[in-house]
Amino acid sequence: MTNNTIEVTLNGDKKQKPQDKELQFGKTFTDHMFIMDYSEEQGWHDPRVIPYQPISLDPACMVFHYGQTVFEGLKAYRTKDNRILLFRPEKNFERLNQSNDRMCIPHFDEELALQGLEKLIEIDKDWVPQSEGTSLYIRPFIIATEPFLGVHPSDRYQFIIIASPVGAYYKEGINPVKIAVENEYVRAVKGGTGTAKTGGNYSSSLKAQEVANESGCSQVLWLDGVERKYVEEVGAMNVFFKINGEVVTPILNGSILPGITRASIIELLKHWNIPVSERRVAMEEIFEAHANGKLEEAFGTGTAAVISPIGEFVWGSRKIVLNEGKTGELSQKLYDTLTGIQNGIIDDPFNWVREVETHTLV
Amino acid sequence: MTNNTIEVTLNGDKKQKPQDKELQFGKTFTDHMFIMDYSEEQGWHDPRVIPYQPISLDPACMVFHYGQTVFEGLKAYRTKDNRILLFRPEKNFERLNQSNDRMCIPHFDEELALQGLEKLIEIDKDWVPQSEGTSLYIRPFIIATEPFLGVHPSDRYQFIIIASPVGAYYKEGINPVKIAVENEYVRAVKGGTGTAKTGGNYSSSLKAQEVANESGCSQVLWLDGVERKYVEEVGAMNVFFKINGEVVTPILNGSILPGITRASIIELLKHWNIPVSERRVAMEEIFEAHANGKLEEAFGTGTAAVISPIGEFVWGSRKIVLNEGKTGELSQKLYDTLTGIQNGIIDDPFNWVREVETHTLV
Repeated sequence: MTNNTIEVTLNGDKKQKPQDKELQFGKTFTDHMFIMDYSEEQGWHDPRVIPYQPISLDPACMVFHYGQTVFEGLKAYRTKDNRILLFRPEKNFERLNQSNDRMCIPHFDEELALQGLEKLIEIDKDWVPQSEGTSLYIRPFIIATEPFLGVHPSDRYQFIIIASPVGAYYKEGINPVKIAVENEYVRAVKGGTGTAKTGGNYSSSLKAQEVANESGCSQVLWLDGVERKYVEEVGAMNVFFKINGEVVTPILNGSILPGITRASIIELLKHWNIPVSERRVAMEEIFEAHANGKLEEAFGTGTAAVISPIGEFVWGSRKIVLNEGKTGELSQKLYDTLTGIQNGIIDDPFNWVREVETHTLV
Repeated sequence: MTNNTIEVTLNGDKKQKPQDKELQFGKTFTDHMFIMDYSEEQGWHDPRVIPYQPISLDPACMVFHYGQTVFEGLKAYRTKDNRILLFRPEKNFERLNQSNDRMCIPHFDEELALQGLEKLIEIDKDWVPQSEGTSLYIRPFIIATEPFLGVHPSDRYQFIIIASPVGAYYKEGINPVKIAVENEYVRAVKGGTGTAKTGGNYSSSLKAQEVANESGCSQVLWLDGVERKYVEEVGAMNVFFKINGEVVTPILNGSILPGITRASIIELLKHWNIPVSERRVAMEEIFEAHANGKLEEAFGTGTAAVISPIGEFVWGSRKIVLNEGKTGELSQKLYDTLTGIQNGIIDDPFNWVREVETHTLV
């Protein structure tokens, strides 16, 4: 079978690292990348860390034509005492294999991928920033590389991990955003690819986002594609509402991405004995709860922003402002707790963080 | 503005051409490719024909992550008197720009693209095969090339045309295929990207195709994603039924691809005074028509196969065989006429074919 030793080729030509305060999201990349290949004959093979470099592909490669791709996003954090922590990375690789199932991409060894990720971070450890709100954003992804124009699952793939030091997602701290409820465009429908983290879900969202931006909204809230009544996601985040003391979030119905931040928040709320339920949530219910003075907070959740409070919903000609447009108490507490655990500032009773061993030299 | 002169760099290292009888679909490519670039500052620029070569991209390029891609497929045919004909190429570039609208990709100049295509064919003219059923399959596509991990429309793109000499799609001539009616997976839904020719529509179809293949079917018939009752497409083709003398095809409802072969067939049927209607078609209606002895023929239509007769539908535990599993008279006549026009064997009263000037040397 395959040789699972991760070979390392160091980059002799290292880039200058940006200062923490200059960091943007996803524009600068570290000196190395992890890569492994798949062929039908060899399975996943040749795992290696190499200098960050362009990918060279035949123009007929399937990724350019038929969108057979999956990806993940996670972060590494530098603690005050200079340890490097990952947040539930095994969950990301588990979900990546679930996405693979939907997109007909062969499973990879999750333990090996985690080793590859840790090796990459170990080598590029100086790229993990330390200032408040900063982190190393990590992007594992798989692309179909067979050069063939027939529509069928590719017979070869590349699995790649790149990493980018990023600043706080919201530069001025978390601030409530204005959200447009989307009536025309649909993100995903049951039987489609909404539960998989695949490129097509994101390219299909661009148009609605563009229209929302024109009306001064930062994101759209997606309704279900069948009845156009029920809440699905917000932008590329899961969404939560606090109604009359209870927290509710749309149940995973076959078209919603099973967010790792979403799952962590549900666990955290249960830990705090705050009532939380996963169920179908009609948009009308949200507007009614607001009219009755019972809609206390709403927020999106995801790896990039962690918690993104919602200050306003615009739904056609209807509009509601939540909590006077201020960040709610629970949203703030969830943000502080999750980022606190991620940064090693507060205790982690859930065993979510995993320390990367960086004391050994390559 | 942009310089629209198409620069040419000839390939000094030409490949050996396969014999016509060895040709497969989409595996061998000609010696050159057409390419042009887009940036926000320069718009579409630098159109050129260059040796066929790998594309080198930063691993953060959006095409690898967010599936912002569109493509087209068309064919060039060599006539018996050695002319080279294209079939309605302007329609493909028109539709490519429509796909661009949905996927937030900037429009290109359709006339320039057509010039680029003709220049490519002129240079690689010896690659257009002549045997019956063969053609040069042409694949224009656009990929998002900004190296940035945020979800937003890319600020740069590449437009590329590659070409592949192909054999007959079905080696033994057109033969009826067995189709599984898909109950679990959904191709597209209104408000999604079904009307655009974008990668995500194809990668999302792989799983259903895999399941259908396991049960001995060659393709799936997609039902609508809302009511799961109405016929949408077959595999990556549009679909037609002949019921009691009338030809019906699903109306373009916001989730079906507006096929160029589909449009040509509708025109052809009208020209022949055969009743044809575009309307909603329930799958149940098809099974009932069969039970009443009124379902005469069914066939898929697309660029690759032109006409693909359907011999059998399997819908859960229900199964119907059409026309004793033989190719119907109308299916055969449509195939012969369309391929005859495409190959310059029969008259083209519609002005569909366009001859490529190949007498000038580069």
